[in-house]
Amino acid sequence: MAIVDITIIPVGTETPSVSQYVADIHKVLEKHKDEVTYELTPMNTLIEGELSLLLKIVQELHEVPFENGIQRVCTNLRIDDRRDKKHTMAGKLKSVQAKLAEK
Amino acid sequence: MAIVDITIIPVGTETPSVSQYVADIHKVLEKHKDEVTYELTPMNTLIEGELSLLLKIVQELHEVPFENGIQRVCTNLRIDDRRDKKHTMAGKLKSVQAKLAEK
Amino acid sequence: MAIVDITIIPVGTETPSVSQYVADIHKVLEKHKDEVTYELTPMNTLIEGELSLLLKIVQELHEVPFENGIQRVCTNLRIDDRRDKKHTMAGKLKSVQAKLAEK
Amino acid sequence: MAIVDITIIPVGTETPSVSQYVADIHKVLEKHKDEVTYELTPMNTLIEGELSLLLKIVQELHEVPFENGIQRVCTNLRIDDRRDKKHTMAGKLKSVQAKLAEK
Repeated sequence: MAIVDITIIPVGTETPSVSQYVADIHKVLEKHKDEVTYELTPMNTLIEGELSLLLKIVQELHEVPFENGIQRVCTNLRIDDRRDKKHTMAGKLKSVQAKLAEK
Repeated sequence: MAIVDITIIPVGTETPSVSQYVADIHKVLEKHKDEVTYELTPMNTLIEGELSLLLKIVQELHEVPFENGIQRVCTNLRIDDRRDKKHTMAGKLKSVQAKLAEK
Repeated sequence: MAIVDITIIPVGTETPSVSQYVADIHKVLEKHKDEVTYELTPMNTLIEGELSLLLKIVQELHEVPFENGIQRVCTNLRIDDRRDKKHTMAGKLKSVQAKLAEK
Repeated sequence: MAIVDITIIPVGTETPSVSQYVADIHKVLEKHKDEVTYELTPMNTLIEGELSLLLKIVQELHEVPFENGIQRVCTNLRIDDRRDKKHTMAGKLKSVQAKLAEK
């Protein structure tokens, strides 16, 4: 199980507002809701699942602005892949929060 | 007002676990809680505030693993800076969610 | 044709030196030298080619540290994908350099 | 000595071409040529120097598209900071190339 953190920036949008593109990307991501766990944050989208599937989904999401007429897309992806133990978004957060709660 | 999305990776940690480093970084970030708004996600830390101050804080956070004996740190930073309107984490999320709620 | 810019950080390496991992990754990349154009810079590896193929190669490269016993790998990928004109590494560099040469 | 790898994406540019923005950013960077070492690659700009100075320069470069009328800029920064030995762009590249040259 890997976790990816993705931002997709459409280039050449006329205005600085890109929330419609982000919303359209999320509508495509929602189709995968039974295969992966995901979360929208104010700066990116986090997706947890099997790495091959995640990369397939990343490519599908990266295509969305092109389908909406954009000619250039800059996508930034961070992959965090840990294999010595179960690696989940909830587990990572809990682990840090537990350490923050300690004296 | 800008928003930054930061991950700080200590290199040469002996084990794959880095949650203690993340917790130590957050303890330093907490000292700035009256100056900036921040949020810990499973993959990064988001901080909202005035850009010069954010970069000062990023450098301070980047120093934390060195203070704990690490000799190499790889920090990845995304800056999202928009100046034609009030730009906040809460506002960005709301804008996308409003568009997702539309038919 | 897209261009990707990739850094692969093995986590839990005991020492801060990771050049052996980078070299091993490049040996795998060299197997693809007839399919893609690539370049090693001091901070990352740039690869130009068809996007599906690039993502397949990225995943293959991301696996290399695991094959060498590492249990956690953090990979950072920037995709620059432009479709209104031929988009190559050489062309991008030339375009900026031409503008820098202007008065 | 740290090394940063930066990409600066102007958002809301009307066209997908951003090479003029990259050239303008480099003209500003050239003013610092006695303080830092830098290199333009097809995907980013690499700068080597003292970290506080690098972050000051990063902020200065990030401002350039705003001075040219852009209202939103997304900057992506990777910092590689190693303190157990002299850490330079030339040294990093040489170290990997030496390992690639080995049998």
